[in-house]
Amino acid sequence: MPESARRIVLASRPVGEPKPSDFRLEEFPVPQPGQGQLLLKTKWLSLDPYMRGRMSDAPSYAKPVGIGEVMEGGTVCEVVASNNDSYKPGDIVLAHTGWQTHALSNGAGLRKLDPKLAPVSTGLGVLGMPGMTAYSGLLEIGEPKAGETVVVSAASGAVGSVVGQIARIKGARAVGVAGGPDKCKYVKEELGFDECVDHRVGDFPERLKTACPKGIDVYFENVSGPVWDGVFPLLNTFARIPVCGLIAQYSATEAPDMKYRTSQIFRAVLTKRLTIRGFIVTDFAAKFPDFIRDMPQWIKEGRIKYREDIAEGLENAPQAFMGLLKGKNFGKQLVRVAE
Amino acid sequence: MPESARRIVLASRPVGEPKPSDFRLEEFPVPQPGQGQLLLKTKWLSLDPYMRGRMSDAPSYAKPVGIGEVMEGGTVCEVVASNNDSYKPGDIVLAHTGWQTHALSNGAGLRKLDPKLAPVSTGLGVLGMPGMTAYSGLLEIGEPKAGETVVVSAASGAVGSVVGQIARIKGARAVGVAGGPDKCKYVKEELGFDECVDHRVGDFPERLKTACPKGIDVYFENVSGPVWDGVFPLLNTFARIPVCGLIAQYSATEAPDMKYRTSQIFRAVLTKRLTIRGFIVTDFAAKFPDFIRDMPQWIKEGRIKYREDIAEGLENAPQAFMGLLKGKNFGKQLVRVAE
Repeated sequence: MPESARRIVLASRPVGEPKPSDFRLEEFPVPQPGQGQLLLKTKWLSLDPYMRGRMSDAPSYAKPVGIGEVMEGGTVCEVVASNNDSYKPGDIVLAHTGWQTHALSNGAGLRKLDPKLAPVSTGLGVLGMPGMTAYSGLLEIGEPKAGETVVVSAASGAVGSVVGQIARIKGARAVGVAGGPDKCKYVKEELGFDECVDHRVGDFPERLKTACPKGIDVYFENVSGPVWDGVFPLLNTFARIPVCGLIAQYSATEAPDMKYRTSQIFRAVLTKRLTIRGFIVTDFAAKFPDFIRDMPQWIKEGRIKYREDIAEGLENAPQAFMGLLKGKNFGKQLVRVAE
Repeated sequence: MPESARRIVLASRPVGEPKPSDFRLEEFPVPQPGQGQLLLKTKWLSLDPYMRGRMSDAPSYAKPVGIGEVMEGGTVCEVVASNNDSYKPGDIVLAHTGWQTHALSNGAGLRKLDPKLAPVSTGLGVLGMPGMTAYSGLLEIGEPKAGETVVVSAASGAVGSVVGQIARIKGARAVGVAGGPDKCKYVKEELGFDECVDHRVGDFPERLKTACPKGIDVYFENVSGPVWDGVFPLLNTFARIPVCGLIAQYSATEAPDMKYRTSQIFRAVLTKRLTIRGFIVTDFAAKFPDFIRDMPQWIKEGRIKYREDIAEGLENAPQAFMGLLKGKNFGKQLVRVAE
């Protein structure tokens, strides 16, 4: 009797925050690999804020997931059957097969992972897309110098945690912004940031100012919203603002009010000679060899630490994803799809 | 009987648009040069939008002119007396002696001009600060490539006119934005831009769109306000926006409403990976040798043209400056202070 596979498809485009009925769990027969193909079985699924964008059909840098199509996502898979000489059963690969237990592949775009080098789940986090996002955006746009102050929002998350730790490696002062005392404690005490400021407490702008006595030279933007409002008045001349994410906006049904208006932003851009630049990780693909040289070394030396937040079972992916958008995760959000 | 000198001082800080009573014309005795000093007599005074910023004590990149102090400004002067071996009477120098007929100098910051090379007034325009602003901001931040579309506001002005002509030299499509049919005709027919769109006519956004069928890759921002509102939806992925000036904001008593809100700007920064970067000309001082190599050559070859708008007499500087802020000038605004 053939094994059954499962997948989660986009049932409807969310208006505002995604809700359970926007997702649908389906069963389907485990597919059979054709000539040159592999059958992949998902071990780990990565959940990332960008997926909220794919659920919407607003114009963006990537095309949306269609209604009824499987949700997009990065995965770590085991090769369970292979008609492709480059892969054999038992190989562990980084893939992008989405929210499902099984998928076919012709091998394109896969990257083999060595389980002896690091836990394979890190291929979706600190040694994968989020780590590379932090590395390239901070170093290529932020260009932190020794003695400067780097502020990063979502500081306990997969990207933010790496941004602050690299800032420290480069000799800068790292100040995190995170939601709640537990995350702030973790960012400061475990990750070694100089300070971490809780944006959920009322006098956030004042406390951020105290944490940045010399102003802000680099602000790595992951969230937008009220955190930006606190950061903006503290920006120094020649500050750089890599714009990586706007999680506070993703589920907004209309663009949220922000304190500083467009004309005020432009005035500061001119008088302080700010650089505001958006990016996505693939823009800096040329930096990947540097990343793959530096990051494992830094992890080995204990200079980069990471934390994973693991949901158990594919069926729990929607709930974990909805939590991620509200900042309920603590560390890189993963789903353990199979042992 | 000693010759009398004249100067225009800041009488009061303007609220909104400057008015005649914000300036005061004073007489004073022609100063006598001390040891190592020169006496300079002003021939040309440059009027530039940045001066509006110096009249205000809002935080900016330069300190304001004090009440009762002479208005700041670039000048072309003749050396009329010298106790300094580096200069002799009759030398023509580029200086920054402000809105006055005479000034002392110790020689620091002066640059000799060769009247045989080009009319000396160009040292305040196409071969001076405005030309260098256009050159460095466009090439260092805008980085126009052949086939791309470059839009510049205030296109008939001292900076904008050079931006579009350099864009053409680099093989890009140059689209100007200017106020009124005469300026637009000049920009297109005399300066050789591909198109020029009048922002004073009601359907400006539609006509700008028609002039930019492939969208906008570089927007050189001189004005802010409604021109930005027309440009913003047309920006292409990876567009660069050098922010050089915000003339529409300078005299606003409160930040003007702009159509697109901060959250919308940030969303586009991310999804289109825009670069928005402010600069002032001194940030790119290292480019000056390149400028001084390229620009006279381009003028000689007829590839860069320029136009001067000349007010006669120091006493007419305030009126000309107030006109400049409203776009009444046509070409680089100068004051002929002495023959």
